[in-house]
Amino acid sequence: MSDKTKKIRVALIGGSGYAGFEAIRLLRRHPSAELVGIFGPPDEVGPITDFYPLLDKTIEMQQELYDISKIAGRADLAMLAVPHKVAMSYVPALRDAGVRVIDWSADYRLKDAAEYEKWYCPHTDAPRLARSVYGLPEYYTDAIKSAGLVANPGCYPTCAMLAIAPILSAGLIEPAGIVVNAISGITGAGKKPSPAMHFPHRNENFEPYAVGTHRHMPEMEQVLADITGSPTEILFVPHLCPMDRGMLCTIYAKPTGNASAEKLTEVLQAAYADAPFVRVRTDILPATKYVATTNFCDVAARVEKDTVILVSALDNLLKGASSQAVQNMNIMFGLDETTGLY
Amino acid sequence: MSDKTKKIRVALIGGSGYAGFEAIRLLRRHPSAELVGIFGPPDEVGPITDFYPLLDKTIEMQQELYDISKIAGRADLAMLAVPHKVAMSYVPALRDAGVRVIDWSADYRLKDAAEYEKWYCPHTDAPRLARSVYGLPEYYTDAIKSAGLVANPGCYPTCAMLAIAPILSAGLIEPAGIVVNAISGITGAGKKPSPAMHFPHRNENFEPYAVGTHRHMPEMEQVLADITGSPTEILFVPHLCPMDRGMLCTIYAKPTGNASAEKLTEVLQAAYADAPFVRVRTDILPATKYVATTNFCDVAARVEKDTVILVSALDNLLKGASSQAVQNMNIMFGLDETTGLY
Amino acid sequence: MSDKTKKIRVALIGGSGYAGFEAIRLLRRHPSAELVGIFGPPDEVGPITDFYPLLDKTIEMQQELYDISKIAGRADLAMLAVPHKVAMSYVPALRDAGVRVIDWSADYRLKDAAEYEKWYCPHTDAPRLARSVYGLPEYYTDAIKSAGLVANPGCYPTCAMLAIAPILSAGLIEPAGIVVNAISGITGAGKKPSPAMHFPHRNENFEPYAVGTHRHMPEMEQVLADITGSPTEILFVPHLCPMDRGMLCTIYAKPTGNASAEKLTEVLQAAYADAPFVRVRTDILPATKYVATTNFCDVAARVEKDTVILVSALDNLLKGASSQAVQNMNIMFGLDETTGLY
Amino acid sequence: MSDKTKKIRVALIGGSGYAGFEAIRLLRRHPSAELVGIFGPPDEVGPITDFYPLLDKTIEMQQELYDISKIAGRADLAMLAVPHKVAMSYVPALRDAGVRVIDWSADYRLKDAAEYEKWYCPHTDAPRLARSVYGLPEYYTDAIKSAGLVANPGCYPTCAMLAIAPILSAGLIEPAGIVVNAISGITGAGKKPSPAMHFPHRNENFEPYAVGTHRHMPEMEQVLADITGSPTEILFVPHLCPMDRGMLCTIYAKPTGNASAEKLTEVLQAAYADAPFVRVRTDILPATKYVATTNFCDVAARVEKDTVILVSALDNLLKGASSQAVQNMNIMFGLDETTGLY
Repeated sequence: MSDKTKKIRVALIGGSGYAGFEAIRLLRRHPSAELVGIFGPPDEVGPITDFYPLLDKTIEMQQELYDISKIAGRADLAMLAVPHKVAMSYVPALRDAGVRVIDWSADYRLKDAAEYEKWYCPHTDAPRLARSVYGLPEYYTDAIKSAGLVANPGCYPTCAMLAIAPILSAGLIEPAGIVVNAISGITGAGKKPSPAMHFPHRNENFEPYAVGTHRHMPEMEQVLADITGSPTEILFVPHLCPMDRGMLCTIYAKPTGNASAEKLTEVLQAAYADAPFVRVRTDILPATKYVATTNFCDVAARVEKDTVILVSALDNLLKGASSQAVQNMNIMFGLDETTGLY
Repeated sequence: MSDKTKKIRVALIGGSGYAGFEAIRLLRRHPSAELVGIFGPPDEVGPITDFYPLLDKTIEMQQELYDISKIAGRADLAMLAVPHKVAMSYVPALRDAGVRVIDWSADYRLKDAAEYEKWYCPHTDAPRLARSVYGLPEYYTDAIKSAGLVANPGCYPTCAMLAIAPILSAGLIEPAGIVVNAISGITGAGKKPSPAMHFPHRNENFEPYAVGTHRHMPEMEQVLADITGSPTEILFVPHLCPMDRGMLCTIYAKPTGNASAEKLTEVLQAAYADAPFVRVRTDILPATKYVATTNFCDVAARVEKDTVILVSALDNLLKGASSQAVQNMNIMFGLDETTGLY
Repeated sequence: MSDKTKKIRVALIGGSGYAGFEAIRLLRRHPSAELVGIFGPPDEVGPITDFYPLLDKTIEMQQELYDISKIAGRADLAMLAVPHKVAMSYVPALRDAGVRVIDWSADYRLKDAAEYEKWYCPHTDAPRLARSVYGLPEYYTDAIKSAGLVANPGCYPTCAMLAIAPILSAGLIEPAGIVVNAISGITGAGKKPSPAMHFPHRNENFEPYAVGTHRHMPEMEQVLADITGSPTEILFVPHLCPMDRGMLCTIYAKPTGNASAEKLTEVLQAAYADAPFVRVRTDILPATKYVATTNFCDVAARVEKDTVILVSALDNLLKGASSQAVQNMNIMFGLDETTGLY
Repeated sequence: MSDKTKKIRVALIGGSGYAGFEAIRLLRRHPSAELVGIFGPPDEVGPITDFYPLLDKTIEMQQELYDISKIAGRADLAMLAVPHKVAMSYVPALRDAGVRVIDWSADYRLKDAAEYEKWYCPHTDAPRLARSVYGLPEYYTDAIKSAGLVANPGCYPTCAMLAIAPILSAGLIEPAGIVVNAISGITGAGKKPSPAMHFPHRNENFEPYAVGTHRHMPEMEQVLADITGSPTEILFVPHLCPMDRGMLCTIYAKPTGNASAEKLTEVLQAAYADAPFVRVRTDILPATKYVATTNFCDVAARVEKDTVILVSALDNLLKGASSQAVQNMNIMFGLDETTGLY
């Protein structure tokens, strides 16, 4: 941003969900950004505080009906907190209008339209995939700086890859047979009620789901291959944990040689020496309570029984979604990466 | 039951809810009762274990389509675990067929049809109200013994009244201005998902609801008036507490004279000397964890600032519903009240 | 603060507890304050992140050994997050050194030393009681502005009194016989492990404690009497609720005349028209999840069965402790009350 | 038991813990066993209801001072719910007195004293290791029938091995490189308060511990080797999950050939066709809420990315401890295995 006194004008599209709520709070506090509009579908128009009574007296905005011309007129950046498929129906017009976009959905994460269509639905904006930038700031800072369209990463991929990428890049583990055993708090499942997310079913319950079939699996494989330069094979098994927020991955991989916890830790430390939001744990292990309400991802490494064990944790609504988007915004607009995020 | 070797044949109507589930478990273990059928609406027909995977390998029954002739042919007793309004549509035919009934709904609790209609809906079986027996075993044992139709009490009224009744009967508190401040675990809200019962909304949340307008309020007033012989006025304020099960009432009332905790405790102890499922606490106070998974109601009394404070706790799915129904069944069929309940 | 560019230099005494942790986070984000030191007892000296791994990479301060000369040399303000009795052993020297103090303990809340000694322990700094200011910003703003010593209110009194005070001041309820039924999340019990706070005992458990004997009761009575000008009698009954944070009071009082929810709500709205951190709820009721992580106190009024029912909720670690202290700091140093708190 | 009318006389040693409490409830309901005494250390003598107010009015026993002569005089069977090291100090005298023993500690689980001493402490009764029977009823029924000393299995090993053993025995997975990723509810950590188990630390927190160094790892390896006849190598990584009870293992292993979920499921079904307490899940996956409060272990199999994934779940206090002990008791005394356990 050449003029440092001018604030980034941000439009949030889809403000009624859990991560949208976090984005509103983050943007309100952000010293160099201004939330200029919140837009949603026809049945969700109204004061944003109707969706989040917690925000009363801190914000008086309406969630307005989605309107490309209003957004184009007001905003430098659109944060798209809408479901996949909806996102790619909005992006072309936003980009044509010169609005930069951070898309929180999966629509522009997978570079291969066929792969996308295998896991999601027909892609209606495939040519743009080549130009979208995957918004994992620890690995794509330069591309993010000048990106018109940033695909904000999935929560599980962010958590898993921040632990795996440096170790895999250093050639310390085999790129095949990596197991990502993960757990998530229930906000990860969104705001829509269902029998599976009903309090008395979910409370005091721990349960795997989508074993080896979750859509975040191909995302991890593609991005790790891109970062490390060689094909990577991930088996991903998520579980639901009875708590609001927090995500933790316990990752198992085969060492290529004589790995040690010390060596792995050094590699992690070197990789993230300049990363303000990754913390390499040594004495303690990552735990969700040490990252909840922050933009941090904590990582740690162990070696036992000839197996490399990586542990990583983050807040699924923050580093797994909204605050990572703000981190991307900071980079896109030439601010210090940490602005408004500590 | 003249023939002690013959088991009570019980049909459960509406087996898919949380309390129905508890009833199935209780009846399976009951030495003198046999669950001869589970019946439900058309969209809930099928193996009962489809509703409760926990029960697999312990029971192989189907929830059958509700069919009065099948029930009449098989059962001595019908447990009605269906919503109000549905219950009174079933009861006439069941009684005509000679089946004794324990109705868990509110349909036969209020003796005055006009009062019922004020709080619920038009009553379609009003003449039978006079013949139904309110199934609070600690107060209506004799009537329950010979009852054809027992109205199983509400959870909140059971919890509150077991503490209030003896103190009020002894003339130690004013019958007006009694405040019942109550909390319930979330199973009390039933199995149907809703935004209000969605895990991320309910977890880490405590909230009042139906302040002074809950339907259990007139039930308390009617029954306390009946037990004590004089009009009683209750203000009832329930709250939702982020846990599965358990209910606790903190009750405030004006003493009529020089009440003391010791005196009140003595009155409670005398009232429940022969009640197997009410425990008068002295050194410790009632807490939901001391009654969860049991048919007990714990009560205690204190006097502070010229106010009588009564505390009571029970498991909303058990003494507040299913195990109280079994207790009533035991009494109706001449068994020891505690059979199958410890 | 005459020089707006100079930041308030704040020393935190006792940084290892839950509210101390929140204070550190608030002060880090505060645009006009600087945390210049954290001080503790000999056995708690070391990097503050040892107590709170969540803070790693955001702060590098040590908790230093408590040292009055260091504090006096560095700080304009001391936040005392230490237990009662310890606080009054620190305050005289701090004040003598010209350091302004916000004491989070109970030591300077009760104006009457005899009353203090009845509930706590011998008072070693009684003459100063007359000069301390009770830090409830909604009622004592002017005195707080120039105060040398602010007694930060208890969590329960803040929550209860913000609902009661306007209604009582308006003469709409009787000043005697007010019942405050309250619940708190478990952080309210502090960081020290005990059988009562052991996870498996506390989880899925709801329990009253200190019925009519809690030390916050005389605090409420004194302050309400001071605010309203006439003696007030409170019966206070707290309960432990299985969640981390959040506090909710359900308050029962006798109306003096024909009260209505509308009238009471108007009185609350008028009282807090200019209060940035009190929200009067109308359509919805206060719930802990609507105030958690904020400095807000939500209040609402109902009238049922000739009883006034007030409901209030706040975050016990924030408006009930640390963020209220920051609000007081803002006022003491001439800042806008809301600085750093939205 | 030749005389079917005679009840098994059971002494419980160490009745104050969470699993001891469950044992008391199970034995009270058991139709063919009688709890003839509860014994504990000097500082835990007194009414058993002092430890568990939930049990008031259901049992009036004292926890007596541990006394071998009393136990020998009264009991056919001693359930040892004491810590390791204490158990092996009691067993010799109990066996000498002719009392059969089910030891819940680790003292007689590992057959190799050197291995035991590597993980625990010096073994003071090593010669008896050869005669103890590992009490996993699904695999050692015949030996349990006539055993004088049964070593009741650890919770994690029970959960993991019931899934692994049939698959490994069938030669469908490699015996090396098996990863057991497990979670447990917090009752698994026992009743003693600690900072790590303090409610506000544990709630809303998920955390790995003892990564690759947990004592249950050698137990799994030994028993699986014994069951399958060939050496097995397990990497075991447990995690703490914010709930009271429940345990779930997600297990990863390399197939030896073309494994399929169908084939694995068939093998599990065949292995447990006659096992009353193992359920092979097909349509749904194991979840802790489907096994909580039961003696069941649920297992399921999947194959993804050339990896065999096994999931198993049980109640850590029941099938993981107390009800498995009752199952062993039933077998030892010639009863049907399921007696008192449905």
